[in-house]
Amino acid sequence: MSFEFPVRVYYEDTDAGGVVYHSNYLNFFERARTEFLRDLGFEQDTLLAQGIAFVVRRCEIDYLMAAKFNDALTVTVGIKQLKNTSIEFEQKIVSSSGNLHSVATVIVVCVDMKKMKPTRIPANIIEELKSDS
Amino acid sequence: MSFEFPVRVYYEDTDAGGVVYHSNYLNFFERARTEFLRDLGFEQDTLLAQGIAFVVRRCEIDYLMAAKFNDALTVTVGIKQLKNTSIEFEQKIVSSSGNLHSVATVIVVCVDMKKMKPTRIPANIIEELKSDS
Amino acid sequence: MSFEFPVRVYYEDTDAGGVVYHSNYLNFFERARTEFLRDLGFEQDTLLAQGIAFVVRRCEIDYLMAAKFNDALTVTVGIKQLKNTSIEFEQKIVSSSGNLHSVATVIVVCVDMKKMKPTRIPANIIEELKSDS
Amino acid sequence: MSFEFPVRVYYEDTDAGGVVYHSNYLNFFERARTEFLRDLGFEQDTLLAQGIAFVVRRCEIDYLMAAKFNDALTVTVGIKQLKNTSIEFEQKIVSSSGNLHSVATVIVVCVDMKKMKPTRIPANIIEELKSDS
Repeated sequence: MSFEFPVRVYYEDTDAGGVVYHSNYLNFFERARTEFLRDLGFEQDTLLAQGIAFVVRRCEIDYLMAAKFNDALTVTVGIKQLKNTSIEFEQKIVSSSGNLHSVATVIVVCVDMKKMKPTRIPANIIEELKSDS
Repeated sequence: MSFEFPVRVYYEDTDAGGVVYHSNYLNFFERARTEFLRDLGFEQDTLLAQGIAFVVRRCEIDYLMAAKFNDALTVTVGIKQLKNTSIEFEQKIVSSSGNLHSVATVIVVCVDMKKMKPTRIPANIIEELKSDS
Repeated sequence: MSFEFPVRVYYEDTDAGGVVYHSNYLNFFERARTEFLRDLGFEQDTLLAQGIAFVVRRCEIDYLMAAKFNDALTVTVGIKQLKNTSIEFEQKIVSSSGNLHSVATVIVVCVDMKKMKPTRIPANIIEELKSDS
Repeated sequence: MSFEFPVRVYYEDTDAGGVVYHSNYLNFFERARTEFLRDLGFEQDTLLAQGIAFVVRRCEIDYLMAAKFNDALTVTVGIKQLKNTSIEFEQKIVSSSGNLHSVATVIVVCVDMKKMKPTRIPANIIEELKSDS
């Protein structure tokens, strides 16, 4: 049902508390969304060249268990709601040993980067997202 | 009523979309919380040496208007709720020209780093937080 | 003789080794170069809007002593050599207690971002840099 | 002769200039060194638990061609010199289309994290590194 992407924790991701720094989970979530779109056939550099970007509008993120240096994590991507100009994702980070580290709801908006305004998600992307979910 | 801390946007904070990368807002929010605690007389390296850290448990963040390279921002810190082991902060990022870029609710838990379990916020910190709010 | 800029070490800058992650020193060095240029009257967002950016071409960096979480650092900026299209900076990171944490030589090139080719540093910047050094 | 590790460029790695932010190349180089050691059978979290870390002592890095958002890069790891307490690596970043983006020489020192002093590289690691090069 949901897309999965592996992420390894490197020194760069950790902090002096010995665990993954909290904002870096958002990076991991975005990497997975990028790979999810790539897997559907959409490259975001192509979209950006067309003046379109998926911009994060809202995040709700729960940190349930600290991920540590060198952990092998899996980041999931599921679609909760699909609208004309936005996508609501449900995402999780789990470890190879089955621990649930974090869950997040992330709303991204399709933005016309010149006008810096929301715009319709391209029809071919909508189509793929619908057939995928 | 609320603490304020200035943050300048450098190249490191931006992304290829020309705006501040979404996860970096969480860094700005934490810098301000750190300075807020310092302003009350509490240094987090001292706390960490005592095995105590404030760990983010949950974030809700709304991105209202993209901040850009070189922007001079102000990050605010207010306390919404104070419990025995956790603090719920309300934070905002505004620009020098008065734009509201982001609002966030951040719950941090006082954690015993050896046990990796929640622990009571030290009494002197609780006292200062209460007299401050 | 040289410009100085204060940098505070936050959790975001550290890693699981308990010290500042090595690549983040480059961020600190760039923040100081940005403030150095601002101090001379040049804003890099204005330059970028004109299609000009200062791009790092080469770094040599020595890590002499680890900086730690919460350290109050000073980053210095000095000019070693000024050419038509590039600037060679000498920079240091010292702590408030006088420890020398890092020294670096950083060569930045003035780049025409449309052509992605080196271009002459604007005459007014050259002038200010010369009168400053 | 040399180890290779793939790195994808995400939004988090780029800056408002539209290219990979210069300090992030150091992150890419370290990810590859970490995977190189893992490939030889050494996990750095295990080493860190033993109080040992490989700490960067010096970097020389040339930025030859800007890497861009979404680029598929390959990071190489070669050993230039092996000493009792340090390793000098030669590393490159090349794109899938064969462009050479960056070359670096990175000296890492084996550090006793309690004493924060250089210590001998464990014999089994030395052995593997010698047989590998």
